[in-house]
Amino acid sequence: MRQEIRGGRWNGPTSGAASGYVQANLVMLPKDRAFDFLLFCTRNHKPCPVLDVLEPGNYSPGIAEGADVRTDLPKYRIYRKGVLEKEVEEVSGLFQEDTVTFLLGCSFSFEKALLAAGVPVRNIEEGKNVSMYITNRECRSAGEVSSKLVVSMRPMLPEQAVRAVQITTRFHVTHGAPIHMGSPEAIGIDDLENPDFGEPVTIRQGEIPVFWACGVTSTLAAISIKSPLVITHAPGHMFVSDLLDEEMAIF
Amino acid sequence: MRQEIRGGRWNGPTSGAASGYVQANLVMLPKDRAFDFLLFCTRNHKPCPVLDVLEPGNYSPGIAEGADVRTDLPKYRIYRKGVLEKEVEEVSGLFQEDTVTFLLGCSFSFEKALLAAGVPVRNIEEGKNVSMYITNRECRSAGEVSSKLVVSMRPMLPEQAVRAVQITTRFHVTHGAPIHMGSPEAIGIDDLENPDFGEPVTIRQGEIPVFWACGVTSTLAAISIKSPLVITHAPGHMFVSDLLDEEMAIF
Repeated sequence: MRQEIRGGRWNGPTSGAASGYVQANLVMLPKDRAFDFLLFCTRNHKPCPVLDVLEPGNYSPGIAEGADVRTDLPKYRIYRKGVLEKEVEEVSGLFQEDTVTFLLGCSFSFEKALLAAGVPVRNIEEGKNVSMYITNRECRSAGEVSSKLVVSMRPMLPEQAVRAVQITTRFHVTHGAPIHMGSPEAIGIDDLENPDFGEPVTIRQGEIPVFWACGVTSTLAAISIKSPLVITHAPGHMFVSDLLDEEMAIF
Repeated sequence: MRQEIRGGRWNGPTSGAASGYVQANLVMLPKDRAFDFLLFCTRNHKPCPVLDVLEPGNYSPGIAEGADVRTDLPKYRIYRKGVLEKEVEEVSGLFQEDTVTFLLGCSFSFEKALLAAGVPVRNIEEGKNVSMYITNRECRSAGEVSSKLVVSMRPMLPEQAVRAVQITTRFHVTHGAPIHMGSPEAIGIDDLENPDFGEPVTIRQGEIPVFWACGVTSTLAAISIKSPLVITHAPGHMFVSDLLDEEMAIF
């Protein structure tokens, strides 16, 4: 999969690809901002679970043999002083000796486990990107790094929500158990049909919205720094690691 | 409890005190070493679970209202370039504007839960400090921070060990499930009766040794840096937080 991407033969989203392997959100920052950002992740473990952090200038992650984080994602986003400049397919020319790379867990892991247990994942059923919302909950800041909590939402019946809590609790490093269910207004979401990221999905009779902490929080946090250069993955275009979903489960 | 300590009326170990509240290992480092140390903790979550990290110069942790980490531990250890200089009862005069404080989870939390489930905790039964050993397992290093993994050991019957795995899995931020059981030689422990820290305990007929990752790893990691000044708690003389053990359990 990574070779396909590096060879330029795959530049689309990675959802559903390399099934069973942990995929990761990416953030690249200069070293002088790395402590604050790592501290932010530590303080906000549910949206920003750290899978790996590479030392300054290192582009070979320990969680993926032979990988190169400068070329092995299908699409990257370049931010200058917090503003999106462009999307590119590799970042070798921008990567510097003091660049620190963060790889953070993503919810693709637990979606597979939900499906295996017969819990519906509507965004997959409908072939859409998951619905994501910026909540009114402030994450714990760290130095100058701050963000509202972003959540993803999957609608299901209440008894399925109970099962979903049990299942996703196991996936502690890929967002874990839901942070909220039912009443969207209680976390500052006015209209489920207008997500801030991704697409809306159908909510059927009797279903409640179930909300998980979302890795997009890490992008908002990274660009809150207004650093001269921040690189992230493009939404849905993740890094595929060698870690197995089941290997990362807490039990 | 913290007021007693700060007032100089308690300078002994904190084991068993303030029952039900999370206690923490302490490490204080200069800011220029803080990223590497936090990265070490991130990469070695089981021995070094991060409860809180205070920004440079801050001595008021978010996990303990009104607390002061310079005065609220019964005993501190001062290390100069990796060598123990002395033990003191407060460190206000040594704390500087660039000092970063780390508070890391400790196994006292799960010992209470083991006892509640009828699993023996021999060190408590015998009124001893838990047996701790430096294993042959190298932690993942981070920059210049490195350490062998240190473990604590509690002997029990195999069926009790099964229950102990289940119980301690819940306490993910206080070392979680065991990292090994049975054959001590497999992890480089030659003689259970000669622990590297703490005291030996009785191992009864039919019992096996069960090993958990231990917070003392964080002390060895911190002093591996050979920084001009590193401050830690004195073994067994922990910081008492406002967090409840049960509040920190994963489910």
